[in-house]
Amino acid sequence: MEGSIARPAFHSRSLDLPAARAYAARVLERFGTSPENAAVTADALMRAEADGLGTHGLTRLPSYGAMAAAGKIDGHAVPKMRRVAPSVLAVDAGNGFAYPALALGLPALAGMARASGIALMAVRRSSHFGVAGQPVEALAHEGLVGLAFSNAPAAIAPWGGKRPVFGTNPIAFATPLKGRAPAVVDLSVAKVARGNILAAVQRGEAAIPEGWALDSEGNPTTDAKAGLAGTMVPMGEAKGTALAFVIEVMAAALTASTFALDAPSFFDGDGPPAAVGHVVIAINPGAVAGDAYLDHLERLALAIESEPGARLPGTRRLFNRERAAREGVTLSAGVQRALAQMGFVDTTD
Amino acid sequence: MEGSIARPAFHSRSLDLPAARAYAARVLERFGTSPENAAVTADALMRAEADGLGTHGLTRLPSYGAMAAAGKIDGHAVPKMRRVAPSVLAVDAGNGFAYPALALGLPALAGMARASGIALMAVRRSSHFGVAGQPVEALAHEGLVGLAFSNAPAAIAPWGGKRPVFGTNPIAFATPLKGRAPAVVDLSVAKVARGNILAAVQRGEAAIPEGWALDSEGNPTTDAKAGLAGTMVPMGEAKGTALAFVIEVMAAALTASTFALDAPSFFDGDGPPAAVGHVVIAINPGAVAGDAYLDHLERLALAIESEPGARLPGTRRLFNRERAAREGVTLSAGVQRALAQMGFVDTTD
Repeated sequence: MEGSIARPAFHSRSLDLPAARAYAARVLERFGTSPENAAVTADALMRAEADGLGTHGLTRLPSYGAMAAAGKIDGHAVPKMRRVAPSVLAVDAGNGFAYPALALGLPALAGMARASGIALMAVRRSSHFGVAGQPVEALAHEGLVGLAFSNAPAAIAPWGGKRPVFGTNPIAFATPLKGRAPAVVDLSVAKVARGNILAAVQRGEAAIPEGWALDSEGNPTTDAKAGLAGTMVPMGEAKGTALAFVIEVMAAALTASTFALDAPSFFDGDGPPAAVGHVVIAINPGAVAGDAYLDHLERLALAIESEPGARLPGTRRLFNRERAAREGVTLSAGVQRALAQMGFVDTTD
Repeated sequence: MEGSIARPAFHSRSLDLPAARAYAARVLERFGTSPENAAVTADALMRAEADGLGTHGLTRLPSYGAMAAAGKIDGHAVPKMRRVAPSVLAVDAGNGFAYPALALGLPALAGMARASGIALMAVRRSSHFGVAGQPVEALAHEGLVGLAFSNAPAAIAPWGGKRPVFGTNPIAFATPLKGRAPAVVDLSVAKVARGNILAAVQRGEAAIPEGWALDSEGNPTTDAKAGLAGTMVPMGEAKGTALAFVIEVMAAALTASTFALDAPSFFDGDGPPAAVGHVVIAINPGAVAGDAYLDHLERLALAIESEPGARLPGTRRLFNRERAAREGVTLSAGVQRALAQMGFVDTTD
């Protein structure tokens, strides 16, 4: 028995969605997360995995577990919210996971937006935002337009500079559409996700494609390790860093949170709580456009879809989601191995 | 006398800022704009010119004049505003110039943002937005954070498509900074402004640089005329068109306005009023961050400025503005010639 635990053979496994969520919740609870927080966080990871957004799915479990175990994320945090102005909701995530704080605040935000036409939720003392499209998609399912901003540990230099100042800060947007799933935009200001370089290094690959990263002197590099030690190339060059600035101010300055340049990694248990911030804005599209909003927007949606090769933002996620509902998702051997090395033994196996 | 009017020699002239503004106002009034609307519009064009944003400065006078003369823009429109929800202001530009509508709404928007924490201004039945950074910079001078969105005639295809659906839609952002001018981000989702291709064609140049435009089949082109007949390359490839979608929905769908794909040109008097839309969001940064906002943000500002070669967004405009205040701006021979051909004789010369 001891031998089989000491040298287990891990194989990638296919899990249906409830099983994937339950697995993630068990992991999180094992490393010191309350059942309530684990359930909300596991659900978000499962949905990311189902949508084909693997970098924000089950692969996060070892790092989330490490952060919870170290107290860098307080798995038992109880988020609190307070309406600090008629159209502004402040949510204190208590240095816990972002997801419980978002889940607490979103229904209140939606109610405020319906009443005021627009409302803003400022989340502080938070950690990894997860899939930025998730909270805005939830608002769109409530008939609201959503905009979300988050910052993250520094990875992008100001245009012309060498040292990272901005995170790969995501901006997300969603709008309801007529008689179908919402359109969801979710983009990082990095040209490609930093996770791609990390994965190349972990696979032992020396080279990365041109245009992904700059070395620590600010010069383009195809050396994976030099890229990891340097900065990520922003989307759209100078315009991308300008957008990163916008997101950094919206997410971290408005919420009195840690700036990207001071934020510790989301990948290990070292250092203090990240205490980064998120801002979610909800807008009632009927406030000005009235009941005609969905019909009017349909003209734009159909024009996009009439272009062969083009599609509405978020279409691929929906396709992946439908497939995952039928076929489940994959729990990789690597994630299981990493968790086992951290002492997680899945007793339900 | 008649001979000198028929074949005048035009030379570029240097005008101080009040003279440039007065000249622009005379042009606008000559082509059918009320003195009030002409004054506000001329001021915005003068400030664009002073900031070094020539494509939105005095070069717009012939096209603005043509649109006013044709009634495509109603130079005598009187914008109206109405608070349609506690935090939403609807402004009807009356198919006039955008600037008087923005000037009417901005003070009310600022007051609403101070009271509610966040407020949204939806401008409809409008025309060319002008420099998107101007209204948000005005908010920042009032101590508020501003976000602005506008749509414009279609020039960018959905990613993978061939026909233009999105405008070169601008997004702008400004925040107050501690003890100095606000930081202002103002970017179009086109990689380069379409005006650069137009200028190349007007100069008789056959070629444009790679990466600016796609031909009408969606293929990259360096042929200036093919690029003008095709679409503009978005910043950041697919991410740029996703951002264009966000801006299109924010500016046109929320305001029940004409989508880019249906909008007539801003450069001639042909067709109906554009009736495009703008959205400006104002946020009170003190609602969550309190009085510490400016001090906190200064940490980010100094980190950016500490990188050799990097600078805060909007720095170049401020430099240009200071120079223009000392040295004035240039009124080109071409603008004077185009206006003369339209029958504008500047009686103050």
